Amino acid sequence: MSVRFERLHVDAGTHARLGRLHTPHGTVETPVFMPVGTQATVKAVGQDDLQALGAEILLGNTYHLMLRPGEELIGGLGGLHRFMAWDRAVLTDSGGFQVYSLAQNRKITEEGASFQSHLDGSRWLLTPERSVQIQETLGADVIMAFDECPPSKSDRQYMEESLARTTRWLQRCAAAWSRERSALFGIVQGGLDLELRRRHLAEVCAIELPGYALGGYSVGERPEEMHASVAEVAPLMPEDRPRYLMGVGTPVDLVTAVAAGIDMFDCVLPTRCARNGLLFTSEGRLNLRNATHARDERTPDPVCRCYTCRTHSRAYLRHLFAADELLALRLATLHNLHHYLELMRRAREAIGQDRFQTFADDVRRRESGRAPAG
Amino acid sequence: MSVRFERLHVDAGTHARLGRLHTPHGTVETPVFMPVGTQATVKAVGQDDLQALGAEILLGNTYHLMLRPGEELIGGLGGLHRFMAWDRAVLTDSGGFQVYSLAQNRKITEEGASFQSHLDGSRWLLTPERSVQIQETLGADVIMAFDECPPSKSDRQYMEESLARTTRWLQRCAAAWSRERSALFGIVQGGLDLELRRRHLAEVCAIELPGYALGGYSVGERPEEMHASVAEVAPLMPEDRPRYLMGVGTPVDLVTAVAAGIDMFDCVLPTRCARNGLLFTSEGRLNLRNATHARDERTPDPVCRCYTCRTHSRAYLRHLFAADELLALRLATLHNLHHYLELMRRAREAIGQDRFQTFADDVRRRESGRAPAG
Repeated sequence: MSVRFERLHVDAGTHARLGRLHTPHGTVETPVFMPVGTQATVKAVGQDDLQALGAEILLGNTYHLMLRPGEELIGGLGGLHRFMAWDRAVLTDSGGFQVYSLAQNRKITEEGASFQSHLDGSRWLLTPERSVQIQETLGADVIMAFDECPPSKSDRQYMEESLARTTRWLQRCAAAWSRERSALFGIVQGGLDLELRRRHLAEVCAIELPGYALGGYSVGERPEEMHASVAEVAPLMPEDRPRYLMGVGTPVDLVTAVAAGIDMFDCVLPTRCARNGLLFTSEGRLNLRNATHARDERTPDPVCRCYTCRTHSRAYLRHLFAADELLALRLATLHNLHHYLELMRRAREAIGQDRFQTFADDVRRRESGRAPAG
Repeated sequence: MSVRFERLHVDAGTHARLGRLHTPHGTVETPVFMPVGTQATVKAVGQDDLQALGAEILLGNTYHLMLRPGEELIGGLGGLHRFMAWDRAVLTDSGGFQVYSLAQNRKITEEGASFQSHLDGSRWLLTPERSVQIQETLGADVIMAFDECPPSKSDRQYMEESLARTTRWLQRCAAAWSRERSALFGIVQGGLDLELRRRHLAEVCAIELPGYALGGYSVGERPEEMHASVAEVAPLMPEDRPRYLMGVGTPVDLVTAVAAGIDMFDCVLPTRCARNGLLFTSEGRLNLRNATHARDERTPDPVCRCYTCRTHSRAYLRHLFAADELLALRLATLHNLHHYLELMRRAREAIGQDRFQTFADDVRRRESGRAPAG
């Protein structure tokens, strides 16, 4: 098996797990946050920056890359790692989520999802087999099953049909999967209905795979609902496989899900917020566009050791955002990614020392505060 | 005197000079290209990038900084170097050029230039005294005299009046100048009229200053006209003072002006072109947006040692531009600045070895070529 998960330790007071994901492109210490590199680049930062930040795995988006520049082009140039000059691990999603969130005129049939590109309106068809084939052509270390993420307001009948179809699609993904370079992860759906979640989890995990994920969270529900559901569902996932909570979330979401036994996360939140001038700090959130920072010589986060906080004042960063300067986006993104990666590093440390509950409580307390001048 | 120029060697076959500009923020090897940091940042790159590129001096724009965030704010935070976390040298222009190129409803009187901000229409007045005061508050190592850059199509009478006024303004700048931290450079105008240039040069250089500049070039005239004029005028400038050709230009413009005895340059060309996907390479210009690069695994410039060329393919860079990704702007800017700074490094080496003419001819030959796939 190309990817192997090693469970090193389980926290004494929670379900939090310390582990290692061994991939063809290096070892990933878990719990891990994966920066999102939608179009073969994490927006506003370079691969040199990501390496310096200590990122061990990036996420790429199948939907975006199949449309532009096309998986065939990337495959012909040696795959995604070589194309983007990134020699550490890569995970690709299946394209399913973007079909629902970005594409136009989508139609779900037993065969798959047909849709129009958000770029030029061209007609496309994604099937379980195509999604696996595209992801294997991209050459990701971890590839995701093609699933349907049903609208959160779906009625129960639609939800049941959708889950049954996603299970059949998973069987087709597993059959199409070459089992060579890329490791296939299955995805559990079911919204906030615990009975459906449990039933789908049993169906998905009956198929032997290198890892499993929870999809369909963080799609509009209240954080408390998501936390409660993940706390019930995550501990039911296979203990000896990595558990990935897709598209989540805030620092509080992350530590809460780690306490439930989740190992892997991805989210655009830190990078997207950064580009809007919103920083995650040890004292809560800081809006760099705020006029109160105009003459503030302090660094964004006094205890942070990232390049931005070691180098620049709030006053300078506020000026860069006010003047619409590109450097603002890189500096804010560097900080937020550092904050997330450092949060996970400290989470791993806390698990190893059997004090994860205390650590998570501290993160919740700090996050609920506001930085004095923010 | 806060800035001291040391002339080390004059090329045997041209007027090209090898020198050193000693400033309160380090030594600048000349001939030098100064990246333009209009709003206290060089667009798309960080101060860490500029340091790694070996930039020894940056340019800041008085007009932009006085409007936003204001020189008083920057001065209150310790000056421009500290504000932007740049401990090497900085030169600021006087604001004169932007008043003519960007501001609205400008009016020139003997007192100075009144105009409306291009940002919010607010009314401002720049005088020789205000310009010097603003630049000293910003704390630049080199500050420029407040001049008028008359429209290139001005009639001779207007031109003569303008030059006489610029001379009177220079006398007022020199009187307002504190002669402390910042070194004041005078600016010679006169368009393409050699008689007016010579006359104004004599007037400007009669005032004893740490350096002198040529303004009013690269404002629409043909390159050959500018080259011919600079070749006549530059050798007449004081030999023991640094000579700065403002707002110029292409690699060919630079080596041609160096051959005439110019020591300092600034231009937005490498950074602005980079953001449009146009790279300067050892084989001529390369347009990264061109579809011919879609599957091209070669680096942009095979002989270049910049981060971009050491790391990324034309195919990847073309994808980043096609997908409007921010990383494209940084990678292209890094390359073009490296190209310009390396051009100047090699120019200095050639002067030291009395082979500048051969070097300049080689640059002209390469620049006139087109990169095979460009």
